[in-house]
Amino acid sequence: MSVTAPQGFTAAGVPAGLKGTGDRDIALVVNTGPRQAGAAVFTSNRAVANPIIWSRQAILDGVVSAVVLNSGGANCFTGEQGFQATHATAEAVGTAVGVSTGDVLVCSTGLIGDQLDVAKIEAGVTDAASQLSADGGLAAAEAIMTTDTHAKTVVRETDGYTIGGMAKGAGMLAPGLATMLVVITTDADLDARALDRALRAATRLTFDRLDSDGCMSTNDQVTLLASGASGIVPDESAFTEMLTDVCRDLAGQLQRDAEGASHDIAITVTEAASEDDALEVGRSVARNNLFKAAIFGNDPNWGRVLAAIGTTSAEFDPYRVDVSMNGVRVCHAGGPDEPRERVDLSGRECSVLIELHAGTASATILTNDLTHDYVHENSAYSS
Amino acid sequence: MSVTAPQGFTAAGVPAGLKGTGDRDIALVVNTGPRQAGAAVFTSNRAVANPIIWSRQAILDGVVSAVVLNSGGANCFTGEQGFQATHATAEAVGTAVGVSTGDVLVCSTGLIGDQLDVAKIEAGVTDAASQLSADGGLAAAEAIMTTDTHAKTVVRETDGYTIGGMAKGAGMLAPGLATMLVVITTDADLDARALDRALRAATRLTFDRLDSDGCMSTNDQVTLLASGASGIVPDESAFTEMLTDVCRDLAGQLQRDAEGASHDIAITVTEAASEDDALEVGRSVARNNLFKAAIFGNDPNWGRVLAAIGTTSAEFDPYRVDVSMNGVRVCHAGGPDEPRERVDLSGRECSVLIELHAGTASATILTNDLTHDYVHENSAYSS
Repeated sequence: MSVTAPQGFTAAGVPAGLKGTGDRDIALVVNTGPRQAGAAVFTSNRAVANPIIWSRQAILDGVVSAVVLNSGGANCFTGEQGFQATHATAEAVGTAVGVSTGDVLVCSTGLIGDQLDVAKIEAGVTDAASQLSADGGLAAAEAIMTTDTHAKTVVRETDGYTIGGMAKGAGMLAPGLATMLVVITTDADLDARALDRALRAATRLTFDRLDSDGCMSTNDQVTLLASGASGIVPDESAFTEMLTDVCRDLAGQLQRDAEGASHDIAITVTEAASEDDALEVGRSVARNNLFKAAIFGNDPNWGRVLAAIGTTSAEFDPYRVDVSMNGVRVCHAGGPDEPRERVDLSGRECSVLIELHAGTASATILTNDLTHDYVHENSAYSS
Repeated sequence: MSVTAPQGFTAAGVPAGLKGTGDRDIALVVNTGPRQAGAAVFTSNRAVANPIIWSRQAILDGVVSAVVLNSGGANCFTGEQGFQATHATAEAVGTAVGVSTGDVLVCSTGLIGDQLDVAKIEAGVTDAASQLSADGGLAAAEAIMTTDTHAKTVVRETDGYTIGGMAKGAGMLAPGLATMLVVITTDADLDARALDRALRAATRLTFDRLDSDGCMSTNDQVTLLASGASGIVPDESAFTEMLTDVCRDLAGQLQRDAEGASHDIAITVTEAASEDDALEVGRSVARNNLFKAAIFGNDPNWGRVLAAIGTTSAEFDPYRVDVSMNGVRVCHAGGPDEPRERVDLSGRECSVLIELHAGTASATILTNDLTHDYVHENSAYSS
């Protein structure tokens, strides 16, 4: 049940009229303890939404009692009035749940530049607080959906403790997190510093390597809460490993539900001189519109892969690079190899293997293709 | 008239069977002197085509007697055999025209990774050489077209000398030049060093600021040839100014014919702390798929503009930025200003003005929107 699977958490998701569709649009997740430790990572965009400005401050003491999330409005570039709306949201949660306002994190998603209706949010928060339950995880996951086609949740258990998570985000996914809202809970007994270390290690390998369309959001936030309710103090590296698995699962769900995509592309760069080089090459290919359009057309156009690699500062010799697509090596040493007709791109999965032959480091970037539906979804509706 | 408008040049464009459509696909431009000075700028992609490898060497002495250009094949990532094809092309020109092979520049455009048919090229070069004339400029401009819908040419005259040019390129346009092939001729009497200075100054402000789809080609080349046939030694700064005007005209033609585009977008960044900052901000917006798709949908989505600015390292405060579209200021000080409904994006022209309020520098980047036709053209056909 997503964020309520671990002990020590209640959640709710209610319609507050922000979306205009009557769907749930306010989610509330409360840590009932005994511990109320939290950690969070935020978008690296320098233009950030008001909830990010608020939450970055609120997380500093490592105490998080509740997270409130709204869809139906990003509350970004809304000035002083917008910041007051975020503050009022946190205050409403503090009052309704009986926690300190400063221990409430706020997340928002939706259209940039519109003011939120604070009265609707306050009523929604009161409603959500009245419905908090240990079964509320799915309702909360539904309330944060925007263009997502389904709620994204995950649960993992081991050694007496549990990690649960929910995520939303189907567009604007990019490194540095981008509009992706994620809440992960655990009943393991860990302090805020340990949570922060684990969360940074996990997101670096997962959400940060999901680059659906190269566009970085103003609102992304991944929050990790620990209640300690299991009484289990986990081995930190084992916990980090399971957390990474949880994040990878959610990142994969985000990729598979990316706006308008028809292919899920995994770009693996091997034999790079450094991990940074592998990442730069992977991202450069993932952001190349000509490559992405070719994959949409089921065209294993390896020339566009090499052209994208050539724009990077990575160490490589174009005439040593090998490129394989779905297991067929179409380019060897910078020249044609197997006939491109042997590559079957008719399925949704597409793997691109780039062997740089410049070292021993590697990395994988997840992305999507560039499709008519992507253009349609992002031109026909404001978001 | 294009490249044959200035005195001292002949040109031809012939079908050699490379394209498969029967259209012209080999262009030849010959400098008949008395001077045979040349300068060229090349793609900054690190993975370059064989003609680029050849031409970079051939230009070193500043002497260029002829330029041969083929469409129907990029001759990129074609290995040793591909380099030999380029060499054979230059040799064929040398023999047919009676000039040194090392004074022949070669340009190619088309699909990456396929070998060229050298026999067809040699026959085509012989044919083109036999048709060289002072009226051949338009035929040459037609022979370099790929997905271009029309030939691009320009002529300017002043103070007794003339500059003429031809260009091709409708996709993969990006800074560092990208597949854009341009040949510019003049009968002014300037040496190779002066040409090089003028060409770098002109392309920096024009072709380098055209970023249609963020994808950098492996084959771009802009070549400037001077015959000295007018006998006029121009003032270098006046020449540079007219050359810049020629380049700007051709860059505008490329933008207006970009693959699948429905809007020509000029992103002007003012009050930046430095020109580099202005360029970084302009390019970041020009490459943001969400912004580009919004413009396709006639949606003046300024939130996506600010989100794109936020990904840069430019000096700015999001809460001081103003954004106007087609003359309507939709964002003031990082918040909503005029209603977005007042912006009319129904025409092809779209101007975006970003006032950073961080300094006094400015720059303009030209780009296009992200459309269904762009996706279609780049997914349905290999290129």
